[in-house]
Amino acid sequence: MINEAIKEKLRTAVGPENVLDKDLDRFGYSYDSSFIPLLPANSPELVVRPLTTAEVSAVMAIAHEHGIPVTARGAASGRTGGSIPVKGGISLSLDRMTKIIELDERNMMVTAEAGVRTIDLYNHCAAKGLFYPPDPASWKMSTIGGNVAENAGGMRAVKYGVTSNYVMGLEVVLADGRVITTGGKAIKNVTGYNLTSLFTGSEGTLGIITKVLLRLIPMPKARNTLQLMFPSLDDACATIHGMLQAGVVPASAELMDKMSIQAVARHRKMDIDPAIEACVIIEVDGEDEAALAKQAGQIKQIARGFAVAEVRIAASPKEADDIWAIRRGLSSAVGAMAPTRLGEDISVPRDAFPEVVRRIKKISEKYNLPIAVYGHAGDGNLHPSVLCDLQNPEEAERVHKAVDEIFAAALAVGGTLSGEHGIGMTKRRYIADALGEDGVVALKAVKQAFDPKGILNPDKIW
Amino acid sequence: MINEAIKEKLRTAVGPENVLDKDLDRFGYSYDSSFIPLLPANSPELVVRPLTTAEVSAVMAIAHEHGIPVTARGAASGRTGGSIPVKGGISLSLDRMTKIIELDERNMMVTAEAGVRTIDLYNHCAAKGLFYPPDPASWKMSTIGGNVAENAGGMRAVKYGVTSNYVMGLEVVLADGRVITTGGKAIKNVTGYNLTSLFTGSEGTLGIITKVLLRLIPMPKARNTLQLMFPSLDDACATIHGMLQAGVVPASAELMDKMSIQAVARHRKMDIDPAIEACVIIEVDGEDEAALAKQAGQIKQIARGFAVAEVRIAASPKEADDIWAIRRGLSSAVGAMAPTRLGEDISVPRDAFPEVVRRIKKISEKYNLPIAVYGHAGDGNLHPSVLCDLQNPEEAERVHKAVDEIFAAALAVGGTLSGEHGIGMTKRRYIADALGEDGVVALKAVKQAFDPKGILNPDKIW
Repeated sequence: MINEAIKEKLRTAVGPENVLDKDLDRFGYSYDSSFIPLLPANSPELVVRPLTTAEVSAVMAIAHEHGIPVTARGAASGRTGGSIPVKGGISLSLDRMTKIIELDERNMMVTAEAGVRTIDLYNHCAAKGLFYPPDPASWKMSTIGGNVAENAGGMRAVKYGVTSNYVMGLEVVLADGRVITTGGKAIKNVTGYNLTSLFTGSEGTLGIITKVLLRLIPMPKARNTLQLMFPSLDDACATIHGMLQAGVVPASAELMDKMSIQAVARHRKMDIDPAIEACVIIEVDGEDEAALAKQAGQIKQIARGFAVAEVRIAASPKEADDIWAIRRGLSSAVGAMAPTRLGEDISVPRDAFPEVVRRIKKISEKYNLPIAVYGHAGDGNLHPSVLCDLQNPEEAERVHKAVDEIFAAALAVGGTLSGEHGIGMTKRRYIADALGEDGVVALKAVKQAFDPKGILNPDKIW
Repeated sequence: MINEAIKEKLRTAVGPENVLDKDLDRFGYSYDSSFIPLLPANSPELVVRPLTTAEVSAVMAIAHEHGIPVTARGAASGRTGGSIPVKGGISLSLDRMTKIIELDERNMMVTAEAGVRTIDLYNHCAAKGLFYPPDPASWKMSTIGGNVAENAGGMRAVKYGVTSNYVMGLEVVLADGRVITTGGKAIKNVTGYNLTSLFTGSEGTLGIITKVLLRLIPMPKARNTLQLMFPSLDDACATIHGMLQAGVVPASAELMDKMSIQAVARHRKMDIDPAIEACVIIEVDGEDEAALAKQAGQIKQIARGFAVAEVRIAASPKEADDIWAIRRGLSSAVGAMAPTRLGEDISVPRDAFPEVVRRIKKISEKYNLPIAVYGHAGDGNLHPSVLCDLQNPEEAERVHKAVDEIFAAALAVGGTLSGEHGIGMTKRRYIADALGEDGVVALKAVKQAFDPKGILNPDKIW
């Protein structure tokens, strides 16, 4: 319970206009982009919007003194409830911290405040010919601080890796308000434990990330898109494998199953041959057109070895856009098929992709629930979408059982609960299955080390 | 003090022949490849050589029960005293854990026990066309467990990164003997905190790494070597910069200053123009000879823009070997110039390389100590070698002051204490300068979380 005296301290710390306590304001900070139902119980008691690291530090010192829960919030585009203040307290919104502090062209690094939108950061760097590759689906609205806190992925991960592969250093406000910086611009750095990686993906439970230092790479000079249609899902997977093992690494390699393809076809009024069981969309990039043509040729040849039905190589940027529109339209097209689209985010060893898809199809049959499967086949990260109506209690029960079995299937083939969405609230009950009891004890020990009072984003991860 | 009853428990755990307590045996485990003087005080009380994870677990449970210090040891090729059992207790040698458990060609990953030599791992994978890039100088003798514990670097880091960039998962025995596994074969994995990165580079202070899961990449099909001679060190640095910013990323880019070049010239009875102030040796790799020729051409053109005096492109593998012999011979050539070669390992932002070299030259003049500078200019990691006689107390004092100033110079330009050697014993006194007091408090909190009794490699890092 945040009393008036504490509110007054917070108003002094960040300015009265940046402490919100009206019902409607608080409600606006009670949800994210997950399928967690809107509940008044998830509203914060207060919303606090600091402008500077010093203000974040002051807020944390007050919260620490009084044992108030603090849940950091970027754009609330997360998919697992990470920014939902499930224990009330303060929703610490970093949306005013939007400065890109430095673009260091010589070292190819950028320093930005946590609240900078990912797309703004991307564009700022791209204008100088520098490339920040991670592209989570939400990148047009998400913040870079949120991306780091969740270790966001995206479609380019197969070639370029995920957010953590670009984080060189962080400024973090600890639970008690102390401020530390980790890492730095030295590329090789083994001074002390790797706290940069520890905070990256810690979902706001270990500290508040206020600034990020990211490395960049030169922008690829040319890119192109290919669309491959297969009568067999296994052959589609085998083709992606074959490419990677031949050292042909595309910038992205997205796979859609038949249900996904047909959903898009319906949505966009396209005609797609019902014999097609899988579609693979590939982006290649490189030095010049010749390099692209070479890659495209290699991919075509490998795909032919696996009975591809159709290979389309975009002849123009317009055609490339048309092909990508299929993938981009997927989420809403699949979503339109049922009242609820429960989109999951499992990740498996690359070669287990076909096997886990087969298992998901069996789960779909067992529980009589349509499950569309698509995802980043190039890196083994897939998004099974259970199409259902969660308002129907009988169906909801079947859905929960099916989801339990999807996670069990992912773990059974050597995979994990989440490739890029985090654990948050929605996957807490599975964490011990994934990491073992001793693994969870180890996570809790780290949490205890950084947040002994348990005020940072409580009731998440485990 | 390890009494007879405890020794008996340990003998039961690993077999009597694997518990060594003779003076000579113990002495053999008292030093590493750093310049820390040989001291009987650094001998362990006991050497214990487990064969399996279960045995390591049993040893840790015994050590934990009795509060006995345990210092893990691979090949003791470390450069900062990481494996020196400075508080006595047990030297836990992993040299019998030499199994390569699985080479998973489909997922391009390898699982190995901690005691496997790096070169053996490399060769095992290379035989199947798979490439494990990290190549610390000691890779012919070092163990992969030691590489992970120190987050070892190497010459190929500029293009391929360091050990941590390849670690997908670990098996770790915790201080009390519990065993956890971290990470896995799923490429994208955000399930829980990134303990894999936390243990990587933790220098044996948080747990005993018993198994490692590493990702591999396809072996480059072609490689070649270039040697560039410059009348100006700044121009040499500018060339490396220019290359990287143009997106020409060599597999390695090694720089040597004049003192280093002349040392090799003397040692190998070569004649090198005294007007040459810097030599850069570059390895390029790629798909085919055409790709190499293109890269070499681009590098040549960039170097010409910075007044290169000579560009030599190896015309045969023999010539490439000859060029690399200069770099490989460097450490011993420089070492032969004085009774002690105190080789340091600072790492700075790439664009600060020329500035830090200038500062080191000033420190050299101020203390009247020759300091040869060479290193991995492509990634800002350099090895200033102070040539001195540490047996001379007056000189030793000057050396220590000079080293203090070298570290201060690295930090002043935004760099760090260690690029690839770790902190160990030799850099402990500088850690708060690098990380700040609150940063060190954060490290200690992590240590406390994993090793509340402080038995794992005590008196290291801070």
